[in-house]
Amino acid sequence: MLTLTTLTDPAFCPHSLNKYASVMACGNGYLGVRAAHEEDYTGQTRGMYLAGVYHRAGRHDTNELVNLPDVMAVGLQLDGENFTLLAGEILSWQRELRFASGELCRHVIWRSASGARFCIESRRFVSLDQLPVLAQQFSVTPLDAPAQISLTTGIDATQTNSGRQHLDEVSVRVYGEQSLQGIYETQDQSTEVVISASCQFSLPGERCFTAKNRRLSCHHALTVAQGQTVTLEKIVRVAHRHEQAISPATFAKNAMNALQTCAVLGYEKLLEETTRAWQKRWDTSRVAVSADDPQDQVALDYAVWHLHAMTPEHDERCSIAAKGLTGEGYKGHVFWDTEIFLLPFHLFTRPQVARSLLRYRWLNLPGAREKARRNGWPGALFPWESAASGDEETPEFAAINIRTGLRQKVASALAEHHIVADIAWAVVAYWQATHDDDFMRKEGLTLLIETAMFWTGRATEVEGRLEIHDVIGPDEYTEHVNNNAYTNYMAWHNVAHALTFMQKFNRQDASFTRAASDFLQRLWLPPADAQGVIPQDDTFLSKPVIDLSRYKAHAGKQTVLLDYSRAEVNAMQILKQADVVMLTYLLPAHFTRQQCQANLAFYEPRTIHDSSLSKVIHGIVAARCGDTTRAYDFWRSGASIDLGDDPHSSDDGIHAAATGAIWSGVIQGFAGLDIIDGELQLSPALPVQWQRLSFPLRWRDAQLTLVIEHDAVTINTTSSVALQLWGLSVMATGQQTWWRKDFSLPDSGTATTATEGKP
Amino acid sequence: MLTLTTLTDPAFCPHSLNKYASVMACGNGYLGVRAAHEEDYTGQTRGMYLAGVYHRAGRHDTNELVNLPDVMAVGLQLDGENFTLLAGEILSWQRELRFASGELCRHVIWRSASGARFCIESRRFVSLDQLPVLAQQFSVTPLDAPAQISLTTGIDATQTNSGRQHLDEVSVRVYGEQSLQGIYETQDQSTEVVISASCQFSLPGERCFTAKNRRLSCHHALTVAQGQTVTLEKIVRVAHRHEQAISPATFAKNAMNALQTCAVLGYEKLLEETTRAWQKRWDTSRVAVSADDPQDQVALDYAVWHLHAMTPEHDERCSIAAKGLTGEGYKGHVFWDTEIFLLPFHLFTRPQVARSLLRYRWLNLPGAREKARRNGWPGALFPWESAASGDEETPEFAAINIRTGLRQKVASALAEHHIVADIAWAVVAYWQATHDDDFMRKEGLTLLIETAMFWTGRATEVEGRLEIHDVIGPDEYTEHVNNNAYTNYMAWHNVAHALTFMQKFNRQDASFTRAASDFLQRLWLPPADAQGVIPQDDTFLSKPVIDLSRYKAHAGKQTVLLDYSRAEVNAMQILKQADVVMLTYLLPAHFTRQQCQANLAFYEPRTIHDSSLSKVIHGIVAARCGDTTRAYDFWRSGASIDLGDDPHSSDDGIHAAATGAIWSGVIQGFAGLDIIDGELQLSPALPVQWQRLSFPLRWRDAQLTLVIEHDAVTINTTSSVALQLWGLSVMATGQQTWWRKDFSLPDSGTATTATEGKP
Repeated sequence: MLTLTTLTDPAFCPHSLNKYASVMACGNGYLGVRAAHEEDYTGQTRGMYLAGVYHRAGRHDTNELVNLPDVMAVGLQLDGENFTLLAGEILSWQRELRFASGELCRHVIWRSASGARFCIESRRFVSLDQLPVLAQQFSVTPLDAPAQISLTTGIDATQTNSGRQHLDEVSVRVYGEQSLQGIYETQDQSTEVVISASCQFSLPGERCFTAKNRRLSCHHALTVAQGQTVTLEKIVRVAHRHEQAISPATFAKNAMNALQTCAVLGYEKLLEETTRAWQKRWDTSRVAVSADDPQDQVALDYAVWHLHAMTPEHDERCSIAAKGLTGEGYKGHVFWDTEIFLLPFHLFTRPQVARSLLRYRWLNLPGAREKARRNGWPGALFPWESAASGDEETPEFAAINIRTGLRQKVASALAEHHIVADIAWAVVAYWQATHDDDFMRKEGLTLLIETAMFWTGRATEVEGRLEIHDVIGPDEYTEHVNNNAYTNYMAWHNVAHALTFMQKFNRQDASFTRAASDFLQRLWLPPADAQGVIPQDDTFLSKPVIDLSRYKAHAGKQTVLLDYSRAEVNAMQILKQADVVMLTYLLPAHFTRQQCQANLAFYEPRTIHDSSLSKVIHGIVAARCGDTTRAYDFWRSGASIDLGDDPHSSDDGIHAAATGAIWSGVIQGFAGLDIIDGELQLSPALPVQWQRLSFPLRWRDAQLTLVIEHDAVTINTTSSVALQLWGLSVMATGQQTWWRKDFSLPDSGTATTATEGKP
Repeated sequence: MLTLTTLTDPAFCPHSLNKYASVMACGNGYLGVRAAHEEDYTGQTRGMYLAGVYHRAGRHDTNELVNLPDVMAVGLQLDGENFTLLAGEILSWQRELRFASGELCRHVIWRSASGARFCIESRRFVSLDQLPVLAQQFSVTPLDAPAQISLTTGIDATQTNSGRQHLDEVSVRVYGEQSLQGIYETQDQSTEVVISASCQFSLPGERCFTAKNRRLSCHHALTVAQGQTVTLEKIVRVAHRHEQAISPATFAKNAMNALQTCAVLGYEKLLEETTRAWQKRWDTSRVAVSADDPQDQVALDYAVWHLHAMTPEHDERCSIAAKGLTGEGYKGHVFWDTEIFLLPFHLFTRPQVARSLLRYRWLNLPGAREKARRNGWPGALFPWESAASGDEETPEFAAINIRTGLRQKVASALAEHHIVADIAWAVVAYWQATHDDDFMRKEGLTLLIETAMFWTGRATEVEGRLEIHDVIGPDEYTEHVNNNAYTNYMAWHNVAHALTFMQKFNRQDASFTRAASDFLQRLWLPPADAQGVIPQDDTFLSKPVIDLSRYKAHAGKQTVLLDYSRAEVNAMQILKQADVVMLTYLLPAHFTRQQCQANLAFYEPRTIHDSSLSKVIHGIVAARCGDTTRAYDFWRSGASIDLGDDPHSSDDGIHAAATGAIWSGVIQGFAGLDIIDGELQLSPALPVQWQRLSFPLRWRDAQLTLVIEHDAVTINTTSSVALQLWGLSVMATGQQTWWRKDFSLPDSGTATTATEGKP
């Protein structure tokens, strides 16, 4: 295995504070902590979040991931002056997130305005070994003369989500000479959060504690000799409880006892333990690449690291927020991103996590059924945005309409129904990758049937055929259309698999079977034209086309909405993101390579890529179509969504789905991995900039390691696996190498439709 | 009249940001706006408050003055860099609050890190002519080269009270090309706040509006030529409604229409109007002094300016918060400060304001009756801390106990009952100064009787005499004592005047009269010992004495609580503030000059002056005792509470009561003004550092102007006034001068007790 990379923050810059606070955030799926600097800066957003801890702060708001009291801030006074990197001079700077351990380190040598130099070091990590634990070290060394140093740290409950306060302070107190505890509860009293912190200083000083205005603080002041170092070691435990199984007092006491045990272990020992835990994760998921540009490896490590850090695999009542646990964007809500962009990584590395994510949807079926019922439809209509309960959490309003001055209503919750079929797609993909009959018999089949029932009721009969009206596809710049190709094909796939698996598992429901069969017979699936282009919806092709180059140059920023209202955008051939291209990505067996190429060629010029979900999907489809050069360009673009030069790209959190897409772009794109007819397929084709690609892969009972080079594929497997390699059936056993020259290119002109039936 | 002074912020300093944000806050009694800089700084607290707009944010909180959405922030980017005075170099600096107009002005010439110089000017005021209006100008001039300038301003509802959010965002929208409106309501839906803002720019630019995360913003970007100035003129209207008399839509529309009218007038015209309104205020209240140190005049202008700016005379449902409208300290609650420290100023300048403040208590009688009833007492027990309703608002917990690590309970609400007698004292003082029989017959007498009834029930019989047990006097370092001298004497005064005025206004209540007479007969009034010292309470004199010098050196910071727990402090002769001295100040007719001197001499060494209410009261008593030198020292100390060197003295707001005390220290101290037996008394004695003192004075129907010099007093009056001057009766008519040499010193050995009866 190659040495794991680090992600570096190249220089202190006020503009990019929040970008790096997001991309370098620490996390373990339970707890996420933004990489805000210890000292405060204007506009720097601190953030600490617990997966699944949501709350609705006001009548006009929705539930959002609660920004918890801050524990990472350290106020530092050096000879009476507040330390800030905005003043003085930075003589040396190093800041990095170490993927091997998840440790965030900063090393600064700084000269104050009055000329004295200081070395200021900080380290922190969130433990992967003990999920509620985070640890911090903060050290100061005066380099030129003794200095008066004052350090303030504690638990600061003045934190809000952009001014929305979710927590009431129940009590704060101090234990002994070094421990603090704050107990908070959500204002609806549903969740209690207990934060316990131990603060040890390496040198004695004048110590006091204050509790004022929601801030519980420990102050430590001392004189430090030249060359001497004072270090604050802070160990924090963040616990929460929804249930009332144990009393609040016992819960708080247990938390304090557990903290003491960790504090005795200390930072270095806790770091060792978390590094070991990360090592195990990397063993099952590291994607290693030999590339001309070493940043490609960083992007892959970045993606895989965050794919672990954002995923609440400890608790199936939670799923993955659109920004993971790194920020407040989209209020911590769960979208189709989870099933479509993030699930594949887990399916092929640790499928039990994919199962947990699907169980989240299953647990939230009551809310989805209720939403369908309220709208007069059968089955389950999953919310477009989901939090803890499965209720619809999409905010009512978004940006200002540039014409009317009024805020625009968000239509997604009303019409972006493809999420129902997306979840069904994920259930099928999970079973195909795992053959987990136990899951399919219970949760999986129920999800498939409930979602399929929704579609049978959602369709409208028009002159004998069934149509799906008034929807929004993945392309949100085109609203309230009829027969969106993505939606109709995915709905068909949903209903077809519900029937298939009912048959397989002997589930009887004559009335549903009748309705479903009729739906499959009569649903209108917009066919490709002679060139292979599938119309995005009934009216799209009749709309005018405009030159999008100036908007494409600022992809991701939605600059088109500064010139046009949403209604105006809707009236033109303008795509926010892949729509038909997305469809060809998800259901490759339904479309010929020529059709995939045709739709890519037709729709891409009409796509601004204002969604972070767009480019990498284009890249995978391009790779499958054999255009590895273009695929690599798209992949690099996708990787630069968070890691590129834009200082504000990720202010309110990383693009979680984009990290999944970085992985998918490589594994499903360049390695050409797919499952067709329940069989593993590989069609590797590396970009010329890469020499070697290797990665572990979980496939049912086997653990594989794949090494892909331009001229060969080497597979090492723990048990025999039958697969298609470059279109030919091979059997992998032990370690074996196949040479590219021994394979001819697969036929690109036919689609495998036999088992899928119509279309 | 002398030219009005200005208050200056001598230099930009990160440590004193919040001090100057408080002392230079703009206000008009309706609206207060902290003098935060337009650009953000870490730790700088922005604040805008409407008198009487309180809300309780959480189950464990109390009602607090709501920090409203911010409208004063202007984000400035100069050639792509965020403007901050922490970086670059300040070449020229001027910042002042102009008392003549209430205008806050800043003029900065600043060199960026890259070397380009800019002139950045800002001005703002809160209108005294149109209470809901505030106006701002913000100008930028590149001095060395053309510059890319980007300005962002708007309505920012991410503001909180130390993380507590009170407002839900109901709607935000943009009108035309320059106006914004945000509608908010308290989370309990009791109050709606409508903020409307017009933003005009003097040069065209690229403009857009955004609404995200509770921020409604206007962005304006342009290139400005060298020497050219771009100016933002922002006119804001802050309206609120508790009643439902008009519909929300109409209310919002009216607010926008009213804003447009103001925007058309423009900054300069609105400033003219407010200056005229201030001129009228100064005419009735300016205290002018010729002093060795010109800062004495600044202190007086500061005090009088804030005494107007903090007082909600437009609405008798509000009173004066402990920090006025300048910050969130004490959560905007109303204490005895209003009646004891602030009322005298209004009594002798604009007595209708004093009446309005007393009507606030009268309107809140139901809450006070309820508090008494819940505790098993008759009459009215006013809350120690009061907000909009008259309910008790004292928080349950204060600072951390240094011994146990637990937060300490606040005992004031349970036992600091002297506020009941303080309000009665103010009612009597108001009538004495105004002879407003109409008020006394209705509100005044009811207040006197209800408060007196409380005391008759509150007293405990011990061996035939009545005692008042388990109270806290003004000295909060001595808790839960029996027969606190201040409380007992003031209660006696309360009951005595209830009877007197009942008689005067023929109010009959045999049962109350009997109880009250018995109370006056039997209440234990701790007598002075041979030296004249009155024991503060039953046990005080038996407690040990410690050396307080190190705590006195940090008066106001409560440093004693860093060494001792409250229980330990309670067990020693340690005073937070004047207690018996306070009593001799309020009831001068009850005590001989020798007794006043004796108590001052005995208690002052035992007093840390940790309360801002302490020093000036000592000063007034010292002045009355003839020690003008010491009185001047105390007065200067009192004036430096807000205006001294401590950069954090006023972070969470000015000390409202201390401004009243600055005025009282001069008028009641150096001018020796008092009312004894309903007669105006003057015993002027200027400190040697002053040459001349002049001030307007309202006395019943007459408007007087007094000019005091060391050797003479000149009075100019609109109608004849009988008064005691240096102990002799004189009659002032028209303009007249009296010479000091013509008076002998008044007898200092006897107290005027005749009409007061016992004691």
